[in-house]
Amino acid sequence: MSAPAALDAACIFCKIIKGEIPSFKLIETKYSYAFLDIQPTAEGHTLIIPKYHGAKLHDIPDEFLTDAMPIAKRLAKAMKLDTYNVLQNNGKIAHQEVDHVHFHLIPKRDEKSGLIVGWPAQESDFDKLGKLHKELLAKLEGSD
Amino acid sequence: MSAPAALDAACIFCKIIKGEIPSFKLIETKYSYAFLDIQPTAEGHTLIIPKYHGAKLHDIPDEFLTDAMPIAKRLAKAMKLDTYNVLQNNGKIAHQEVDHVHFHLIPKRDEKSGLIVGWPAQESDFDKLGKLHKELLAKLEGSD
Repeated sequence: MSAPAALDAACIFCKIIKGEIPSFKLIETKYSYAFLDIQPTAEGHTLIIPKYHGAKLHDIPDEFLTDAMPIAKRLAKAMKLDTYNVLQNNGKIAHQEVDHVHFHLIPKRDEKSGLIVGWPAQESDFDKLGKLHKELLAKLEGSD
Repeated sequence: MSAPAALDAACIFCKIIKGEIPSFKLIETKYSYAFLDIQPTAEGHTLIIPKYHGAKLHDIPDEFLTDAMPIAKRLAKAMKLDTYNVLQNNGKIAHQEVDHVHFHLIPKRDEKSGLIVGWPAQESDFDKLGKLHKELLAKLEGSD
């Protein structure tokens, strides 16, 4: 397996990638490392992490990001999951606990285990959406 | 923009991709289509969908899956988000409402808006984890 691209000596997930801390590794690729969460919300709760140290999704180079979802798919198939969530949290307020990007693959077999989702959906406000849409298109123009 | 690969005539998200239903489109690539959720949980709540009809993550070809996270990153940067969740739900019990794979990009600016996360974490049970690990490695062997 090729060497990880950019790790942080103090990061617990970087230590797991380097093998300095043991883990229940399931899949390792050039760009990613997947292992069982040791405090699972459901049996088979797995973390997929880029072999690149960065706290937030927007800190990670695309070649690491592209690798994550095919791994989630491969794990879901191996576990024969039909109902599950894939979740990636950015920031403490968004429930991030380790400052190294991680994608949770969380089996959802019943109401009480796995991810519990609260969904404070707003009514559709098309005027507001139209204004926001225009603003965001301007911000996206020329971005990559 | 190239034609979508495989759409379903009855699917509301396929109709959005084809332009038969209007949407607040933000980004379209060969493989993906991103647009504002019209019942947002927070301002800027966006859906990223593959231009391939499939209900669950494990139904989608890899080339569509690889495309999604770089788009989430591009959107997060354009919106200057620092705290947010990326969520993909599979199955009604896992809070999926439309049977066409969609990744939610959900800004998390305060406790009350955006994704509300419940996390029924279990204590670490290393015997159980070790047994599961062994079983999953056997299932993953030779899988792709």
